[in-house]
Amino acid sequence: MHTFRLVLEYDGAGFAGWQSQSGGQRTVQGELRAALLGLAAEPAPLRVVGAGRTDAGVHAAGQVASAALSTRLDAAALARALNARLPADIAVLHCAPAAQDFDARRAARGKHYRYRVWNGPVRSPLRARRWHHEPRPLDVAAMRAALRHLPGRRDFASLRAAGSEVQSSIRHLRRAELGGQSGGALRFDFEGDGFLRHMLRNAVGTLLEVGLGRRSADSLPTLLAAGDRRLAGPTAPAHGLTLQSVECGAG
Amino acid sequence: MHTFRLVLEYDGAGFAGWQSQSGGQRTVQGELRAALLGLAAEPAPLRVVGAGRTDAGVHAAGQVASAALSTRLDAAALARALNARLPADIAVLHCAPAAQDFDARRAARGKHYRYRVWNGPVRSPLRARRWHHEPRPLDVAAMRAALRHLPGRRDFASLRAAGSEVQSSIRHLRRAELGGQSGGALRFDFEGDGFLRHMLRNAVGTLLEVGLGRRSADSLPTLLAAGDRRLAGPTAPAHGLTLQSVECGAG
Repeated sequence: MHTFRLVLEYDGAGFAGWQSQSGGQRTVQGELRAALLGLAAEPAPLRVVGAGRTDAGVHAAGQVASAALSTRLDAAALARALNARLPADIAVLHCAPAAQDFDARRAARGKHYRYRVWNGPVRSPLRARRWHHEPRPLDVAAMRAALRHLPGRRDFASLRAAGSEVQSSIRHLRRAELGGQSGGALRFDFEGDGFLRHMLRNAVGTLLEVGLGRRSADSLPTLLAAGDRRLAGPTAPAHGLTLQSVECGAG
Repeated sequence: MHTFRLVLEYDGAGFAGWQSQSGGQRTVQGELRAALLGLAAEPAPLRVVGAGRTDAGVHAAGQVASAALSTRLDAAALARALNARLPADIAVLHCAPAAQDFDARRAARGKHYRYRVWNGPVRSPLRARRWHHEPRPLDVAAMRAALRHLPGRRDFASLRAAGSEVQSSIRHLRRAELGGQSGGALRFDFEGDGFLRHMLRNAVGTLLEVGLGRRSADSLPTLLAAGDRRLAGPTAPAHGLTLQSVECGAG
């Protein structure tokens, strides 16, 4: 068995997320596993782990995965063979040998997600796949003021998916920034050691309500302190979110 | 009858080009005409003209069209009504009243096209719709040297589509530039008063051959002087090309 570290890009539109599911829906992990199985020298058990379990519709420009398989291919040949077998909406950008016990999820020290909002009066066909469209004018200064309350090590229970059963909802959000101007292309950048399910999309949905004047920037500390998902805004659509990169420890 | 000046954005992937055809294929002009017909106050003859007749698969971020119809809607209301009726891959970005005889094709003084090339070793799923992928390393300096031979008022017969029956193949190319670096995102920008069919895609196909070392940058003047399409490179794929904007005279 050899373990490899893979960097993946994918267009999330055609996937029911990263994680293979019992329902037989198309997933990134499932496609990657199928491509790897066709290249394995022996039908040994195959382990494929992603650093971030992206939800249905979420894209990745730099997802990291670990894969252990029995193969005589070196890393470069494995990358070429995988790209020849994978469908057009997934690509292996990089492949390197890793320590036998490298696990992308455990090794991930940080992740960078970007959420894109097209804030123009008219929908944009050329941005339809990766940008969430908000036609109403947004108060970007108020959104930036609200965003400043988010970074830090804190309990993000107010922003986690309803019904989540994760044990701890404490996460360290290292960076939360908003680039761009009202009436144009807005980019939210979030970096942290890990994120709760829907946490960033719920944050964006809440920040858009601030931008629309429906809640104040100053209301964020109270919202976060309450730990109540029902107080936050709606979950922003998945197609605006991209996992940009993953920072991994040694492996 | 009122004449309007429309600015349109569309994703070319789902269209057999701008121009309506006898075969009943889906075209931008056809979709726009259908949406306008549904808004016309009287079943009067409808005239819809595009400044640039984009080919199948070519995108537009700022196509200009003229449309004459009998309606009581003002320009802003017409834009809203059109966007509600048009399919998701076309949008009206702007609509303004124009002189009765305004014709977008005759009024066009200049057009800006951009051709995008993703020059990375691996295909990019997130760029697959708008970027042509060239995996081999490109000599960008040589491509820039070749590009310098293109601008000017000259006969572009060597770069027109085979079998073209346009009377004159003389065009004024005002600007031809290449931005970006080898191994990354390359953008060709072309501005001129008008272009022959496939002229820019044939120029890009020829310039990529220069970048791959298959022909020299110095060979361009001879190629252009020969006026022979067979001497140029292949036609680069349509999906890399976008009509960015159209400069129109008064109307």
